[in-house]
This record gives sequence, structure tokens and C-alpha cells, in this order.
Amino acid sequence: MNRTRVGLIGWGTVGVGTSRILLEQKELLEQKLGWPLELVRISDLDITTPRAVNVPSGLLTTRAEDVYAAPDIDIVVELIGGYEPARTFILKAIENGKHVVTANKALLATHGREIFDAAALAKVDVLFEASVGGGIPLIRSLKEGLAANHILRFFGILNGTSNYILTRMTQEKMDFQHALAEAQGRGFAEADPTFDVEGIDAAHKLVILTALAYGLRIEMGEVFVEGIRRIEPVDIAFADEFGYIVKLLAISSRQGNEVEARLHPTMLPKRHLLADVGGNFNAVHLHGDAAGDILLYGQGAGMMPTASAVVGDLMELARNHRGGGAQRVPALGWRSFMDQGLRLKPMDEVVTSYYFRFQVKDRPGVLSRISGVLGENDISISQVNQKGRDAAGAVPIVMLTHEAREKDVRRALDIIDRLDVVLGKTMLIRVEDRL
Amino acid sequence: MNRTRVGLIGWGTVGVGTSRILLEQKELLEQKLGWPLELVRISDLDITTPRAVNVPSGLLTTRAEDVYAAPDIDIVVELIGGYEPARTFILKAIENGKHVVTANKALLATHGREIFDAAALAKVDVLFEASVGGGIPLIRSLKEGLAANHILRFFGILNGTSNYILTRMTQEKMDFQHALAEAQGRGFAEADPTFDVEGIDAAHKLVILTALAYGLRIEMGEVFVEGIRRIEPVDIAFADEFGYIVKLLAISSRQGNEVEARLHPTMLPKRHLLADVGGNFNAVHLHGDAAGDILLYGQGAGMMPTASAVVGDLMELARNHRGGGAQRVPALGWRSFMDQGLRLKPMDEVVTSYYFRFQVKDRPGVLSRISGVLGENDISISQVNQKGRDAAGAVPIVMLTHEAREKDVRRALDIIDRLDVVLGKTMLIRVEDRL
Repeated sequence: MNRTRVGLIGWGTVGVGTSRILLEQKELLEQKLGWPLELVRISDLDITTPRAVNVPSGLLTTRAEDVYAAPDIDIVVELIGGYEPARTFILKAIENGKHVVTANKALLATHGREIFDAAALAKVDVLFEASVGGGIPLIRSLKEGLAANHILRFFGILNGTSNYILTRMTQEKMDFQHALAEAQGRGFAEADPTFDVEGIDAAHKLVILTALAYGLRIEMGEVFVEGIRRIEPVDIAFADEFGYIVKLLAISSRQGNEVEARLHPTMLPKRHLLADVGGNFNAVHLHGDAAGDILLYGQGAGMMPTASAVVGDLMELARNHRGGGAQRVPALGWRSFMDQGLRLKPMDEVVTSYYFRFQVKDRPGVLSRISGVLGENDISISQVNQKGRDAAGAVPIVMLTHEAREKDVRRALDIIDRLDVVLGKTMLIRVEDRL
Repeated sequence: MNRTRVGLIGWGTVGVGTSRILLEQKELLEQKLGWPLELVRISDLDITTPRAVNVPSGLLTTRAEDVYAAPDIDIVVELIGGYEPARTFILKAIENGKHVVTANKALLATHGREIFDAAALAKVDVLFEASVGGGIPLIRSLKEGLAANHILRFFGILNGTSNYILTRMTQEKMDFQHALAEAQGRGFAEADPTFDVEGIDAAHKLVILTALAYGLRIEMGEVFVEGIRRIEPVDIAFADEFGYIVKLLAISSRQGNEVEARLHPTMLPKRHLLADVGGNFNAVHLHGDAAGDILLYGQGAGMMPTASAVVGDLMELARNHRGGGAQRVPALGWRSFMDQGLRLKPMDEVVTSYYFRFQVKDRPGVLSRISGVLGENDISISQVNQKGRDAAGAVPIVMLTHEAREKDVRRALDIIDRLDVVLGKTMLIRVEDRL
């Protein structure tokens, strides 16, 4: 065969971008590859609504099986997202001996093992560069470029929507609801923003990166996930006073046989490179034992950046298809996983620094009672800031702690939040000082 | 064969780092690869001086041919640097059917075509991730991850030594000589710093990146190169007042069929991501038509970061060696080069903004004479700053211009520098405002 034939399942935003590159950049792709990468079919339930690309109408079908089961297709691109029928379509494509490209982080984070095992058995490849960090060549870098490293830690801004919202809250002192509405108005957030603002999308990506970085496959349910809904402008302002910026951060590290992987709003020193990652950009800062500090930054989503990653994967698979090099690089970069040798540290055991904002009655002895409870629970304070009373007559007391254990912090806050002088639930944001 | 056998030529800093990873991280590499990557021989003229690695003495030889011609070696790593005998050793290794890894940017920038052609003919691969950006997975990203893009422009900090010197000059208001001496004291600059501070090392890397980005192979002699020796603390201070920072920057862009590629000190807006790249770090900011803005950042040199890139390449070649996938990805990412379709724009035709510092006699009418000459040469001024007289009685006049043609600027300065009111050669630094 003189060409590699591609079929798309799903013709939404990323599908349109992918078909644009395949149709409009044919020449470029062939100049690099040496033979044509040809788009031969696109399936979508809706093939009538006009899209921002000119596609010969003979390419379109409403039946996914015209792609995943077609004898004239070598590589299937799954871009419908979600768990089903994406999972079934991918497994069928694999069963039919086709290589697969997908951008589906939700599916890979939950059913990755099933899919990768099926691919290994069928001697085909499943590539997924577009699933994390959009157009950033991150997954390939972890699987290949940095393969000689033990990854010791990584921090990532992995969700553009929540980063956009936090950036606007920081720059314009907006509250969460207004920033979300603006993001929705500009097309940076979906009508139902739950996956983005609750941290679920970013946690899916964290699960994938943890497998790539350490060879440790973890379940979504094992990862501590906290979104950005509770963040208030007042917390962002206090963070600023202390020299921090608030980011929704994936945080992961390995010490000995223990791996941390958590996803939550984090106060990051303003001088950290990730502090400058604004708007809907993504970035991952990682540290390899040999390579040292590496930062990869770019558009984490969007039609063309994500399509750039999809077509990059298609070119690799076109080479595997033609050269017979399937399963040349293991799907997650590891031929032997470290699942037996490594342990995911439960959140209770995590040690980090904390920011607390207590809402208290303006009464003598309150600070002493709170700090007493903290002391009894092995939490030592590094900075305190008590502000004037607010409209409701409550006084905010803001604290930064030295390193403390999550379990101790929860126990202490549980007691503090029940003190009669405390008005409402204490705000907690974890602080990351490791640079 | 159940293993892939590696031989090193050159046991200096990077050679020691590479041998450390191969010997000390055997297990990690095998967990990822699936079979052993075995270091079987190291050649160096000096095998007696102790190195920071434990190597079985049977591995050492003083004869390079024991590596490049050895029947029991599959991949040769060339780490001696320089043009000869590195070129000969690499060509011999290729002739003997061995894959090659090299970190030698000087050699690739000048003899790359000969080497890559020989490799294609012999059906082996020559990989060189370590030649640009040390541990940053940059070359692989351009060849594969971003392959679906037309690269429209890139800016890079490609030499850690000169970036370290400029960072110190900026932070500590040191002059060039003191900052250089400090860099030498800390091991960040060599005794003869010419290649680094004159921009030659960075220009070698620019030549390699230009081939990767656009498929355009240019010669070192075609690239405009200016180093950092002439930069004075006063220029850095003026830059700061105008909102800029001075960096030694590789600047490249493509418009239609014209490609720019130049390497010189550049005033960059302080808010640009590259402005934060301090010390001996490297970074490349690039813009792809699909992926958008991408930044890759990391250690651009040093024993272990460079070795990380070398061993990453070794793992790819081990896969090619075992799977028979040689020449799977073209050496520079392009199966068909764009040498005929693209043209390198001569420096004379480059259009950019400029910073000038004139040293003039403190006399009426001087500013009018200088600005008159500029005006006659189509150079329009955007900002002027005239400072008090210096110790020698000269007055510095500092200007920023709007966009102007390099040829016009040179003609104008040639006239200005011969005016009787002008004392000494005008300082010129190009300004980059495209973001």
C-alpha cells in the first residue's frame, strides 16, 4: 500500500480540526512522512450541520462501524469523548487490527488498562498525546525523550478552563460565578462546567501522567480531588499578600517507594514558573533525576492545538503501520509496571503547608483558642494575619502553617469549626513551597 | 540478540554522565525497554584519570576503532566534540552499520548533510537530541510531536553560559568581564569562552533548529551572529527603564517563502516568558500554525541533563536496532527538504526595532542632527532618553525606533558615527516586540 488510511469517529471541535489538518496540510504531512496520510472516512451522528472545513461528502457516514470495521482503514481516530460508546468503538477497532488515536482522558483514566492490554494482544498501538496538555508534546516526552530518568516530581496546570477562571479572579478580583460566566461566554467553559471546575478533568490527566512518570497505574477513586468552586476573591488577595498565587494544580512526587498524586487548589510562590501560566494555557513542570527541571507549556485545549497532537500521533502510527513497528514503544512507556513496587500515599499521610482562613467572633482569646488546638495537633504556625471585622461582624484570621500532616489538619479543623467563637467552616488551601 | 550493545567514544563530562546512567540505571532502562541496554566499551585518549563513575576496567580502551569498528557494538555514541576526528569516527561507525548518537552541534551544523546522507545510505540512524537544549526534549518534539505544524517562528535561549553572564549582569549590575570570570569560577564557562560568548555555539544550534522547523538547510556562514561581549551594564539599565531585558536570542521566523534566522543580543519585553529564563537554563518558544505557542524549558547543558538526552536517543535506537526500524523518522524530520522552495532572508533586509545609544558632545543641535540622519534613512524614533553628562564629558542619548530595515540602520549609523559631535561607535541592540 502506498498510503496510510485514516478514519475519524466523532466530528466535533477536535474532529473538525483533525480533518482540516489532514485535508489542508496533505503536502506538508507527505513532505515529512514520505507517503500520503489520507483521510478516507468520518463518522458522526450529525453529518449535516456545516463545519469549518471542506470535506468531500463521500467521506461522511453516520455509522461508526463504517470506520472501526472498515477494511480500507488502517488507523482509527476516536474523538467522541466520554466512556460509551467510545470504549466499545476503540475495542472494536483494536479487534479489527487497527491502530487507534484518542484524546479521551476520561476513558483512558478509567478503562486504560483494558484498552492497552487489548492493543498489546492485537499487536496494534493506541496513542493519546492529545489527551493531556492539548498541543504540548508532553506524553511523547515522558515516554521517550525523558525515558532515561526517574521522574522525582511533577506539578501541572492541566485544565485550561479552571486556569482561565482563576486568572480572571486574580487579575480582575472577580468572584468565581462571574469568572465562570465570562469563561462560558468566551467559549472557554462548557454549559455544564462540572468536570472542569471540580477538578475531575485534570484528575483524569493526573492519573495518566502518574502511569507515564512512575509506571504506577492508579484508579481515579484513589486520587484526592478538590475543585475551585470554593475559592473566594478574599483568599486570592491574602495569597497575594503572602507572595503566592492560587492555581489548580496536579501535584505528584515520588520518595522511595511512595508516590503522591493529588489535585487541588494550591498556593504557589509568585516567582515559580508555573505562576506565569495564565489564561487557558497548560503547563507541566517536572523534575527528572538526570534531566533536572523541565517545563513544557502550551495550549491545553482547543480545536487546532488538540488536532496538532492527534495528527502527530497519526504520523507515528503511519510509520508503525508501514514499517511493521507496532508496540515498538509500550503504551505508557513501561514494559514492566511498578504497580507492585510502589504505593500511592493516602491523602491522610500527605505532609504539606497550609493556608487557613478562620471566620471568628471579634472577642478576646479567640486566636489563643485556635492556635491552642493547632498546637495540640502538631501544627505549627509560620504567619498570622488578623484583619478588621467584615460586614457581618465576623473577623477573618488568616494563617500559614509550617509543614503538617493532612490527617492532623483535618482533626484540628474539625475541632476548631465546632468552637462557639468560630462562624462557619474554615477555608483551607494547601501551599506548595518545594521549588 | 537479547540485548543492545553500546560503545562510547569520548569520556569527558557528558561521557561520564552517559556511562553513569547506563551502568547505574540498568534496571530502569530495562523496565522501560523490555531488554538490556548494555555499555560494552568506552574509548578515550585518557583512561587513567579517575572519573565520577565506577566502570569495570575491561570496558576501557584508548583506541576509538575498538568502538566504531567493533563487531560486538550496535550503537556508537560520539561525545568528543569538535570537527575532527569526531567526523571521521562517526562516518566510520555509519560505514560499519552502526547507529550513532551524538551531542556534537558544531559538527552537525557544518557537516550535517554529509553525515545524514551517509546514514540514510547505510540504513542506520544518527540521533542528536543532546546537541540542542541539553536535557530538553526539543528535537524529538520538532521531529515528531509537532510534525503536523508549519512552524511560523521560534525564539530561543540556546546557550547557558551567555545566559548566565547576562543574568548576572542584570541582577548584580556587573560588567561583562566580572560576570564572565564568575561564570568561569563556577564552571559555567570554559577557559576559552569564545564559542559561547561570541554566539557561535548558539548559532550552531540555530542552524540545526532551522532545518528541523522549516526543512531548510542553511550554512553557518549564512547566519547573522553577534555575541554579548559589547553589552555594557548601562545598556541593561536603559533596557530595564524601557521595560525590556537583554537576552542572547536565536530568532527565526517564516513568512511565505522567506525564512529569517539570526542570533544576537535582543531586548525582550520583561513580560515575555523567555524573560524569566535565568541562569544557565535554556528555553525555546515556538509557534506552530496548529499547536499555537509552545515553550520548552530546561537545563541546556551539564553532565546529567545532556546524558539524559543521549540515553533517551539510545533507547529509541535500541528499538530501531531490534525492530529493524532504521530511518523510520528522517534525521531532520523531513523526507523532502524545502531547500528549493524557501529562501534565507539576508540580514540587510531584516526589519525589526532598534535600541541605539549614542555618545555625543554636550552641545546644542546634536539631537537634531542625529534624528535628521535617521529620518533621511527611513528610521522613525519611538522614544528618546537623554541623560546627564558622564565622567568623560560625553552625553549618552538613548533611543528606541519603530520598525526599520537593517540596511537603512547600518547606513544611518555609518553616517552618524562620523559626525564630529559623536564620540565613538554607537551601541545598537535589536528589539523584539512580536509576542
